[in-house]
Amino acid sequence: MAERAHALSTVDGYSGYGAEQGEKKLRAAIAATYYADSGIEETDIFVSDGAKCDISRLQVLFGSSVKIAVQDPSYPAYVDSSVIMGQTDLYQQDVQKYGNIEYMRCSPENGFFPDLSSVPRTDIIFFCSPNNPTGAAASREQLTQLVKFAKNNGSIIVYDSAYAMYISDDSPKSIFEIPGAKEVAIETASFSKYAGFTGVRLGWTVIPKELLFSDGHPVAKDFNRIVCTSFNGASTISQAGGLGCLSPEGLKAMQDVVGFYKENTDIIVETFTSLGYNVYGAKNAPYVWVHFPGRNSWDVFAEILEKAHVVTTPGSGFGPGGEGFVRISAFGHRENIIEAARRLKELYK
Amino acid sequence: MAERAHALSTVDGYSGYGAEQGEKKLRAAIAATYYADSGIEETDIFVSDGAKCDISRLQVLFGSSVKIAVQDPSYPAYVDSSVIMGQTDLYQQDVQKYGNIEYMRCSPENGFFPDLSSVPRTDIIFFCSPNNPTGAAASREQLTQLVKFAKNNGSIIVYDSAYAMYISDDSPKSIFEIPGAKEVAIETASFSKYAGFTGVRLGWTVIPKELLFSDGHPVAKDFNRIVCTSFNGASTISQAGGLGCLSPEGLKAMQDVVGFYKENTDIIVETFTSLGYNVYGAKNAPYVWVHFPGRNSWDVFAEILEKAHVVTTPGSGFGPGGEGFVRISAFGHRENIIEAARRLKELYK
Repeated sequence: MAERAHALSTVDGYSGYGAEQGEKKLRAAIAATYYADSGIEETDIFVSDGAKCDISRLQVLFGSSVKIAVQDPSYPAYVDSSVIMGQTDLYQQDVQKYGNIEYMRCSPENGFFPDLSSVPRTDIIFFCSPNNPTGAAASREQLTQLVKFAKNNGSIIVYDSAYAMYISDDSPKSIFEIPGAKEVAIETASFSKYAGFTGVRLGWTVIPKELLFSDGHPVAKDFNRIVCTSFNGASTISQAGGLGCLSPEGLKAMQDVVGFYKENTDIIVETFTSLGYNVYGAKNAPYVWVHFPGRNSWDVFAEILEKAHVVTTPGSGFGPGGEGFVRISAFGHRENIIEAARRLKELYK
Repeated sequence: MAERAHALSTVDGYSGYGAEQGEKKLRAAIAATYYADSGIEETDIFVSDGAKCDISRLQVLFGSSVKIAVQDPSYPAYVDSSVIMGQTDLYQQDVQKYGNIEYMRCSPENGFFPDLSSVPRTDIIFFCSPNNPTGAAASREQLTQLVKFAKNNGSIIVYDSAYAMYISDDSPKSIFEIPGAKEVAIETASFSKYAGFTGVRLGWTVIPKELLFSDGHPVAKDFNRIVCTSFNGASTISQAGGLGCLSPEGLKAMQDVVGFYKENTDIIVETFTSLGYNVYGAKNAPYVWVHFPGRNSWDVFAEILEKAHVVTTPGSGFGPGGEGFVRISAFGHRENIIEAARRLKELYK
């Protein structure tokens, strides 16, 4: 990135607008690195300034008259962007849900995968795997069910794979590993959690050319229009960083970073398990989802903050299905994780 | 920017998410550099990845049920983002306008400023000054009229000042130089045309805390929610570039760049004037707006492309009011501008 920044000050190295969809080399590298076996091509990749931004651009694509489904609990940006686009009805205080959103409960009882036979049809299904906050990664069989469900209903899946590199078991790292997914799914991804690019701003979205609206028009063509009108591409300097990430050294460095945080995860899991709590997630994600049965998430959050001076995230912030849980993040320095573990053991001994 | 990129690889220099509104130092520097006399404060500034992106985020803020007005001709992103948000009716081929948009004609006859007494009320008024493509900068008196018009109608002005540094006469460089503007206007701006940041992606939008919806709620509060939900801030590396631009050396370098392109503009003006054409703009903008009375913009574009191998922009691409004009851009290497001038003189001699 430093080299690219310097190069911008030279006649040969300067570059201006475009391509809005991302540099050809980076699109090709993403396709080759993450989608070599699934038939996704360079031209299906849209480089972005992050998954969060692309989620909102996708919502602009879908417009205000669609109905979405989300996992409950889930990353708040799906619901929030739906509210902003005017897709929802009023917030219902009693159930802590917005009207006209389908909340698909994901709990220990159903293995954090919704019972699709009881889920009504929606236009769009946001599905995050490995899930933020629960850390659950859907299995191949579950994703096969999901793709079939979307196909039968004429729904579009927006599959958020921002944590895919954290997968340790044989769960699919991309929805496009599932046969038929290219006709029903969009995938959004990010360098944020692999390379610490949260401030650099770089991600991508895959819209296969096989994904069509019911009138046969390719979804990618309309998204391309939005990318060109409402966005002008990720910073060229950030894109140079993306190319660095996908070089052999970069891939190795990202694996090391992911491995480091997974060690942090193990420390957190050991802490709560030894205290007798049920913990979920963790294996395929940088998040540990700790159950405090019968307790209010915010009360647990406040207790840990005030008594141990450790910051966690109350589960109910991710939807009503998160009530009674707290999300513990593994993104931290090792000494801080160890110290937090010590204090938590002291607090709950 | 190279230093910031390097720093990201160190424990002390690493930074992650936020602030979504931009770094405090950069917001303060923008307020101090461009708005010292107009009472705009650091907290009124939202740093962005470019004016185009913020125009669309503003459209998301406004929603699908507003009516906008645009200068005709104008930068296409206002109309295109309005269409995408569903604010418009169908395209009317006969008049080459979208339904439910108010096109405010700006022509040599009215000095490129609309006759506001004949413009109906709209919710939003997009106003670009210096204008792309005409190069016309509105005078203090004209902007005072515009602010009064918006105030009387309860309209919000979105003032695009992306070319303000090109102003050579005493036209205001910001809408906020006009008394009362803080209660009716938003201003969007960019480093793209001052520092060649088109690929770096950095701009800003000013939403004064005095700008309220009719129920008294501050517009900035809602925009802040959109910035936090649909965007996560400009790249920290690009923001380091912005701080560089606003240092004493950076400001001098930007003035030099602007001065260089203004010399290009002079060469283009001399070329067409000597050939007997009426040219507009140029004085306060990097664009020369050349009139080919009675001719079709695309025909002129094709003629210049095919016979002189010079690329221009057909005026009708900016709206029906651009028909019969061609926009010539001064953004080029000096030797290319001189060569283009030579060929144009040969073509139209």
